[in-house]
Amino acid sequence: MEAGGLGEVKTESVVCFTEEDPLVLESGATIGPVEVAYETYGELSEERDNAVFICHALTGDAHAAGHHGDSERRGWWDRLIGPGKPVDTEKFFVISPNLLGGCQGTTGPSSVNPATGERYGLEFPMFSVRDLNSVHRRLLAKLGIEQLHAALGGSLGGMQALQWAIDYPLAMELCLPICASARLSAMNIAFSTVAREAIMRDPDFQGGRYHESGRGPNIGLAVARMMAHITYLSEESFAHKFGRARRIEGTEPGLGPDFEVEHYLHHQGANFLSRFDALSYLYLTRTMDYFAPFDEEGVEEKLQGNPTKVLAISFSSDWRFDASHSTFIRERLQAAGWDAEQVDIESPWGHDSFLLDVPEYHKLVASTLATGLLPA
Amino acid sequence: MEAGGLGEVKTESVVCFTEEDPLVLESGATIGPVEVAYETYGELSEERDNAVFICHALTGDAHAAGHHGDSERRGWWDRLIGPGKPVDTEKFFVISPNLLGGCQGTTGPSSVNPATGERYGLEFPMFSVRDLNSVHRRLLAKLGIEQLHAALGGSLGGMQALQWAIDYPLAMELCLPICASARLSAMNIAFSTVAREAIMRDPDFQGGRYHESGRGPNIGLAVARMMAHITYLSEESFAHKFGRARRIEGTEPGLGPDFEVEHYLHHQGANFLSRFDALSYLYLTRTMDYFAPFDEEGVEEKLQGNPTKVLAISFSSDWRFDASHSTFIRERLQAAGWDAEQVDIESPWGHDSFLLDVPEYHKLVASTLATGLLPA
Repeated sequence: MEAGGLGEVKTESVVCFTEEDPLVLESGATIGPVEVAYETYGELSEERDNAVFICHALTGDAHAAGHHGDSERRGWWDRLIGPGKPVDTEKFFVISPNLLGGCQGTTGPSSVNPATGERYGLEFPMFSVRDLNSVHRRLLAKLGIEQLHAALGGSLGGMQALQWAIDYPLAMELCLPICASARLSAMNIAFSTVAREAIMRDPDFQGGRYHESGRGPNIGLAVARMMAHITYLSEESFAHKFGRARRIEGTEPGLGPDFEVEHYLHHQGANFLSRFDALSYLYLTRTMDYFAPFDEEGVEEKLQGNPTKVLAISFSSDWRFDASHSTFIRERLQAAGWDAEQVDIESPWGHDSFLLDVPEYHKLVASTLATGLLPA
Repeated sequence: MEAGGLGEVKTESVVCFTEEDPLVLESGATIGPVEVAYETYGELSEERDNAVFICHALTGDAHAAGHHGDSERRGWWDRLIGPGKPVDTEKFFVISPNLLGGCQGTTGPSSVNPATGERYGLEFPMFSVRDLNSVHRRLLAKLGIEQLHAALGGSLGGMQALQWAIDYPLAMELCLPICASARLSAMNIAFSTVAREAIMRDPDFQGGRYHESGRGPNIGLAVARMMAHITYLSEESFAHKFGRARRIEGTEPGLGPDFEVEHYLHHQGANFLSRFDALSYLYLTRTMDYFAPFDEEGVEEKLQGNPTKVLAISFSSDWRFDASHSTFIRERLQAAGWDAEQVDIESPWGHDSFLLDVPEYHKLVASTLATGLLPA
């Protein structure tokens, strides 16, 4: 993984739907225009058969690899994507867009609704994981790509890739849902609802019309992020990173931050405010809660005869979406005759493992993408 | 456990320290007066040798058993305390007080400071688990009790009982810390700090001077409680209680509560506001964070020659304070020559197991208290 990596890259933007040709959601509601931010890395082959699609997680963005001018600040999956890396940009043409409902270049609830001239706010329609794919399929069409070699992503990104493979049997050869779920547990939803309540009850949320006021639900959003961040790590990673160390040993006990882990979480909360929007957070977490592709009516028939190869990857210390979530995905697909496997990888870093240097994981992604074959 | 139980009981109150004879905290700060709310069940023997002391958890109170007039509304440990129950009030004289810093009859940060005529608020001094015991030892002295048969409690209550046994080798024959910890992990502290930030950042917290304004940090306190409540249950108990059931099947997706687990958490958050005070929540959680009796200087010597028998009990699905916390307590005590054992009890109900009907747990408490002997 010590290859030089991608150099400077930039985020492009394309209008995928317009007011006249709007996005029609699964619910029947429409949105138009829909603009999509995306990055690409590597070259599309003449046969147009080497495209790899990256689906980001809840708070990710299009900037997955390389840098935007400051070589110290790299994309969120720069460890995995680049020349000689597991998603090898010398072999693959990699497409990494921001998703519908996001706040980093793709249309979302804080975008302006042309019908009113104001931001959508809570008027933005609820959307599903399926709707994320409607947008990204249009993006692919604009890029002239008919079939993907692979789609992969972590957490919500893995859910998106899985839904895509289910809905479009010929869309991709390989699908890699990484620490994903096909059915959030009650406890998953519980954390999700507390995060949303922290935001929506913040007086500065103002029913979603906060942008114009100059005050946003910063307290609620920071609290939501701090809590969620805990669930992305593990007991072991917290112990390893922080233990019970205090920033200044020997200070008098007090209610404010004192232990290193407290300073770290405060920093995470504060940082998040500058890069993420509360409305996107509400909508995208809710999209995850409702995701349940195997509970849909008629799914058994629908799953028949799908040639997509699926590798579900989980991490041993991920307690948000542990291996049982991948097992559920694998079992349902295998029962319908799919070529589906799962690998649970030993890693101490919790849910965030999918973003980190876990050599066995990197090797697995590299070999699966390179060979097009699932591990035995 | 089908015995009739205690009938109507009532909470008493006693002034344990006065302005002239104040409580001197470990830090050197003083508080006076200190009033203590408590209940007692059963009869003190003539030999005064059958006293069992109950230490409650973070949000508990003095009302552990019986009822206050409505026989449907029972004390928080009514399953364990009563005639024929594990803490058998036909054998034992049971004392159950509210703790220092609390908000249910014992002096805490929302009590009036006689020096100013106003509530303490954040002027209330930080206090330690040791200080909780200074108050309760004075209560015992007022009740004319010199030695306890046993002290027991869950979570913070277990921490209190353990500190008591360490500091006063002859104070009790038996000490039962139940799902307790002698050193919160970084992840434990992380949840704790997010809860406090939710409260302290709430604009209605007003620097702790909220009582007079008629508005309190209700949003922050409810969010803190909802989050904490998740950590008291387990994946399994959430799945069993709620699964993915929705309150009204077939409703349109939305951001507000829809799944049963969401309604449940909302109810937990709202309910908590009527029975608990934000300042007490801040102080008591912080007292837990700093608790680390085995990290104190000179502790090895101090632990020598202590005849107290200690039984640390944990529950298999408690991920807040799992068995490793009890193992740490047992190992440290055994290394100092104590008669200390631990039992990890199979239970699906998470941290809250200590409050619930877990037959093996009830039997263990019953036999240990009855025989005065630890399990082999």
